[in-house]
Amino acid sequence: MRLALTLAIFALASPAVAQEAGKPVTPTSIVAAASAEEWIEIPQDDLLIMELAPTADGSERTVIIQLMPPPFSQPWVENIKTLARARWWDGKSIYRSVDNWVVQWGGGDPDLGFPEPDVPEGVVAPVVDYTTPAELLDEPVLISEFERDNTLHQSDELLDENGRLWRSYFDVVRVDNFAQMTLHYRGWPIASTLSNDPTDPTAVSWPIHCYGSIGVARDLAPDTGTGSELYAVIGHAPRQLDRNIAVVGRVIAGMAHLSTLPRGTGDYGVYESRDEDTPIASVRLASEHPEGAQYRYEYLDTASESFAKYVHSRANRQDDFYAVPAGGVDICNVQVPVRLIE
Amino acid sequence: MRLALTLAIFALASPAVAQEAGKPVTPTSIVAAASAEEWIEIPQDDLLIMELAPTADGSERTVIIQLMPPPFSQPWVENIKTLARARWWDGKSIYRSVDNWVVQWGGGDPDLGFPEPDVPEGVVAPVVDYTTPAELLDEPVLISEFERDNTLHQSDELLDENGRLWRSYFDVVRVDNFAQMTLHYRGWPIASTLSNDPTDPTAVSWPIHCYGSIGVARDLAPDTGTGSELYAVIGHAPRQLDRNIAVVGRVIAGMAHLSTLPRGTGDYGVYESRDEDTPIASVRLASEHPEGAQYRYEYLDTASESFAKYVHSRANRQDDFYAVPAGGVDICNVQVPVRLIE
Repeated sequence: MRLALTLAIFALASPAVAQEAGKPVTPTSIVAAASAEEWIEIPQDDLLIMELAPTADGSERTVIIQLMPPPFSQPWVENIKTLARARWWDGKSIYRSVDNWVVQWGGGDPDLGFPEPDVPEGVVAPVVDYTTPAELLDEPVLISEFERDNTLHQSDELLDENGRLWRSYFDVVRVDNFAQMTLHYRGWPIASTLSNDPTDPTAVSWPIHCYGSIGVARDLAPDTGTGSELYAVIGHAPRQLDRNIAVVGRVIAGMAHLSTLPRGTGDYGVYESRDEDTPIASVRLASEHPEGAQYRYEYLDTASESFAKYVHSRANRQDDFYAVPAGGVDICNVQVPVRLIE
Repeated sequence: MRLALTLAIFALASPAVAQEAGKPVTPTSIVAAASAEEWIEIPQDDLLIMELAPTADGSERTVIIQLMPPPFSQPWVENIKTLARARWWDGKSIYRSVDNWVVQWGGGDPDLGFPEPDVPEGVVAPVVDYTTPAELLDEPVLISEFERDNTLHQSDELLDENGRLWRSYFDVVRVDNFAQMTLHYRGWPIASTLSNDPTDPTAVSWPIHCYGSIGVARDLAPDTGTGSELYAVIGHAPRQLDRNIAVVGRVIAGMAHLSTLPRGTGDYGVYESRDEDTPIASVRLASEHPEGAQYRYEYLDTASESFAKYVHSRANRQDDFYAVPAGGVDICNVQVPVRLIE
């Protein structure tokens, strides 16, 4: 990627979002007012439908996971699709739950080590870096300057050699303890060593652990996770895991079926007896699910103007409840809006 | 407070923490090696013991809350102590649970408004700011310079006019989207407008919302919360609530009894029927609890050398599992160590 930097004042004197008389602009009102063109359907091949065993009173428990698109974590994502097609998780279980940390599922026999002996042929632990060269980000990224005085101030617009617009957050989301910069890309929270020089050829990017993120459990050695053992984050973002584990997706529906599971009392939060496990009935890709068509989701384009306003609103809450807008926001407090397509 | 700034190189070439041969220094090993003098007992009057109704199988559910010490949020903390002594919460319930947000308890009749009509005399919603003048911080605060190259580099030592040492974090924890600076003070995560000039007389500080924090629910008007309705954070730190709500404590034991409760399906996550509520059997201060003596806890002094090393280790994980230390850490990823006194 080669970029030519141009600067443009991006005035936001009057919000484009329709504002009801007397009603403050809120994250919810901005999302509700986004145009149909600003929503992007998630491919059916990127949706994993995990059916847990029903509860004691017979209630169904369906968890929907969105898998991460290129260029991030693709070797693991491909393994996960292979495992789902092979019905590998059917009859396996959730065997670990640690408060403010993760719940974890899969084969779950720690004596077997990684990878498990019964995974389908071809499912091997990739020996790769957990980061991606920044130049592989080949779609627009939103860059907006926000100031602590609660105004969306201007944006730098970055045009690459093909005239494509690059934009990315600055003052709101870029402040971060774990990376030089954070941004959203193709609907996902991403960290990067990109900073003031977006043309730096050595820059790398990586997906971020937030609440609800799905990662690939592994042994101590970094090249031991295939994707057969997965975890979901159920607490404050464990960002220290970034670049140490592959983040491969996020829960977009049914999160409470995971986050409310009893915590395990054995070592590392593993349940002490297999009777405490939650059985997994099935894991399917929506693309091969008999009722897959009912699982169509879309997300708000993170390069759209509505998303920029949504971020700004999250950083500067004007809802009736808020007396003191923060003037900033953490990347994990900016959940990307995802909704069912009715 | 008036401070004279002195600079001192604080070399950490050899860790003071005893390190077993071949074992990496970890947050856990640092806490285990802290000396007895570095632990501070929590006053019995600052411990709230909340007994929920037993589970269906008869298991007890005890939640221990540490109340916030001066100078923060004291009008609400005093109300809470009055309410506990008056047995106000006995027979009330947990009536709201929202995934990645809060669980909430108290009287819970939204038609009654705030404050509830049956609170004890003298329990009124304070009309005060949610911040505290920085000069009220009259105890040492730890300041340590950390660099992204994984070394504890130096500290600025700040001496006030009485010769007291002020120290506070810089490079590790100060990076923050929600404040100019974050630090730990008397065992609590605090944000502040203090930045490069710690003698700024206009500076204010305020307590931070992290996972497990307890806050005072209120109506839309900022002066409507007494402390009778409380919530616990069960997700990623909702820092946008800082300075908009009084943070009055944190859960130090039994957190899973709150975080695993079913999520409410009514408006704002309130349970649709009172049958879904979790009854509160009793709420007592440890100082008046018949078995209070079994609830003695201590926390690691956040102005101690071991705590400085603990923060540094959290920001630069060297455990066998971590291949890439982050080089930084969020204030809410630095949980203050608290333990039962046996």
